[in-house]
Amino acid sequence: MLALKRWNTPTIYNGWEQVTDHDIARECFNLEPVRDFMPQMGPMVGRAITVVFEPSNPKHRENASAWSEYYAYVASVPGPKIAVVQDLDKPVMKGAFWGEVNSNIHKSLGCIGTIVDGAIRDVDEMNNAGFKALARGMCVGHAYSTPVRWGVSVEVFGVEVEPGRLIHADKHGFLVIPPEDEVGLLEAAEFMDRNECNTLIPSGRSATGKTIPQLLETIKQAGMRSGQAIKEQFGRRGEW
Amino acid sequence: MLALKRWNTPTIYNGWEQVTDHDIARECFNLEPVRDFMPQMGPMVGRAITVVFEPSNPKHRENASAWSEYYAYVASVPGPKIAVVQDLDKPVMKGAFWGEVNSNIHKSLGCIGTIVDGAIRDVDEMNNAGFKALARGMCVGHAYSTPVRWGVSVEVFGVEVEPGRLIHADKHGFLVIPPEDEVGLLEAAEFMDRNECNTLIPSGRSATGKTIPQLLETIKQAGMRSGQAIKEQFGRRGEW
Amino acid sequence: MLALKRWNTPTIYNGWEQVTDHDIARECFNLEPVRDFMPQMGPMVGRAITVVFEPSNPKHRENASAWSEYYAYVASVPGPKIAVVQDLDKPVMKGAFWGEVNSNIHKSLGCIGTIVDGAIRDVDEMNNAGFKALARGMCVGHAYSTPVRWGVSVEVFGVEVEPGRLIHADKHGFLVIPPEDEVGLLEAAEFMDRNECNTLIPSGRSATGKTIPQLLETIKQAGMRSGQAIKEQFGRRGEW
Repeated sequence: MLALKRWNTPTIYNGWEQVTDHDIARECFNLEPVRDFMPQMGPMVGRAITVVFEPSNPKHRENASAWSEYYAYVASVPGPKIAVVQDLDKPVMKGAFWGEVNSNIHKSLGCIGTIVDGAIRDVDEMNNAGFKALARGMCVGHAYSTPVRWGVSVEVFGVEVEPGRLIHADKHGFLVIPPEDEVGLLEAAEFMDRNECNTLIPSGRSATGKTIPQLLETIKQAGMRSGQAIKEQFGRRGEW
Repeated sequence: MLALKRWNTPTIYNGWEQVTDHDIARECFNLEPVRDFMPQMGPMVGRAITVVFEPSNPKHRENASAWSEYYAYVASVPGPKIAVVQDLDKPVMKGAFWGEVNSNIHKSLGCIGTIVDGAIRDVDEMNNAGFKALARGMCVGHAYSTPVRWGVSVEVFGVEVEPGRLIHADKHGFLVIPPEDEVGLLEAAEFMDRNECNTLIPSGRSATGKTIPQLLETIKQAGMRSGQAIKEQFGRRGEW
Repeated sequence: MLALKRWNTPTIYNGWEQVTDHDIARECFNLEPVRDFMPQMGPMVGRAITVVFEPSNPKHRENASAWSEYYAYVASVPGPKIAVVQDLDKPVMKGAFWGEVNSNIHKSLGCIGTIVDGAIRDVDEMNNAGFKALARGMCVGHAYSTPVRWGVSVEVFGVEVEPGRLIHADKHGFLVIPPEDEVGLLEAAEFMDRNECNTLIPSGRSATGKTIPQLLETIKQAGMRSGQAIKEQFGRRGEW
């Protein structure tokens, strides 16, 4: 996973596109906007643990052992883990699941960050804990935040996430990798990036001294070389 | 107020939760997302002055003395003051009430910042004036910005604000403190923060060398100690 | 255009207001929120080239020469150019037109940036290319991004943009200058800024030692001097 973490999420998407049979315009990534509150931390890569909460509802507080049972679940799964959190009060943000306390505890239990379709608070303290968060926004309170159920399939930002899914996330959004697409993903992403570096990117970065027709022809040829290389590698038609 | 300003708004919320009879999941804070355009200034604390405007409507410009009468109102209230501004064109942002001119004038009249349910512009110049703004967004023009009425109850970001209310605001959002909750608020916030520092936060930050069962037990015990301390202090059941 | 680039977009708006017959509360600027992903680059000024795409629709990929024909269009127009891009999948962001490849190619063809009513990706690499972007958000993939039609009138952020229009954009949003308002625009903006510097801004920045009544009178007099100067310059009633 640390090797996957060397690349940003768009680059992983470019590799995933070549190895998947899923719809690259609709599945396996967030369809609603998400904000990375710690872009300076770079990407995060881990396996999903899941939890649902409903901050507006005080009844959930009646389950006095909810937190300790939920923490036992978090601890029981091998890391690195990303906590994927569904807020039943969506779209209103009435209370945050995340703050300084919960971030530090999750970090101690092997979580590296969270994707929460709701609010966070104590952003400075979350940064201090080294705990990355992609969220919808911020709010001032926690209201009645309590784990309602966990280890279940959740829906966040328009995509369903099952526990255990490999997740790659950065400021651009996140990818939820289907199990069958894990094999060869890193290699495909690395190939696609190298291919861009060899073809289309330099065609746009070495324009000095060329006439416009020469430049357009250089770009066109680079596009064809890029497509040909992808076809040879993956047996599909090229990206461009 | 300067002592309250030492703490972020979530910490003030944690104290407020212990002293209030209001619904902590619904009242006294913004229910719609707000963006702090000067997070580097930290929190702001002051009493609300209020004003309503409607940038799309040129008729308000016919009141030639609107600005000078409104400024006299602003000057008549003791500071530090926060200008809470309702935009009748919401949700469209057709013009900004705030820019370099208005920020500097308000600052000179004892305002430290604004919460505006609409747009700002001249963000660099507002920073230069030391005038903090929580807003919905930015726009390029002022359109027909004119004070329509002032010193009245306004609704911003889903919460009603009366003139004179104590407000605590930072990048997480804002709290509108009811008058009856002002007494003891600072002390409650300070107690809650100290209690976290003594219990739950260290339980998550001193995991080194512990087995998972030891760690889970440490967290559980810290939660119980935290709850017990809050019960003794405030005579309620603990936060966790 | 480089002289216009010295001023932020709100200042250009202030000048435009004095020379235009359009509705200053409704026309020629974005009516929907837009985010500048490169605020540190300052404003951008250029002429619009336009393109429409539909990332969710794989059929557009069947036009194998779309990219080279579109690039020939981009190259055929004199610069500096701003690519104004309409996303037919709005409001969902399924794929980005912009990434490292496309930014570098456009830059080589004389584009300085883009206004896209959709998503971008590879933000770091776009910064590295010196290519500024105002967009609605970010996403991880490109989906089936292909130029569908270009050199046509497009609608972005609630405003129609025709090819060739002069555009001024910064973190506050963007202005689409009608051709008849280009003459005298720079001079009007410079006049309005100088007038503010001579009247209303110092009235708010030199409050020290004044009583409140003196201060209110200073502000009032500055407002009258400002309005009088604008009336003499443009033959209209003043801004304030």
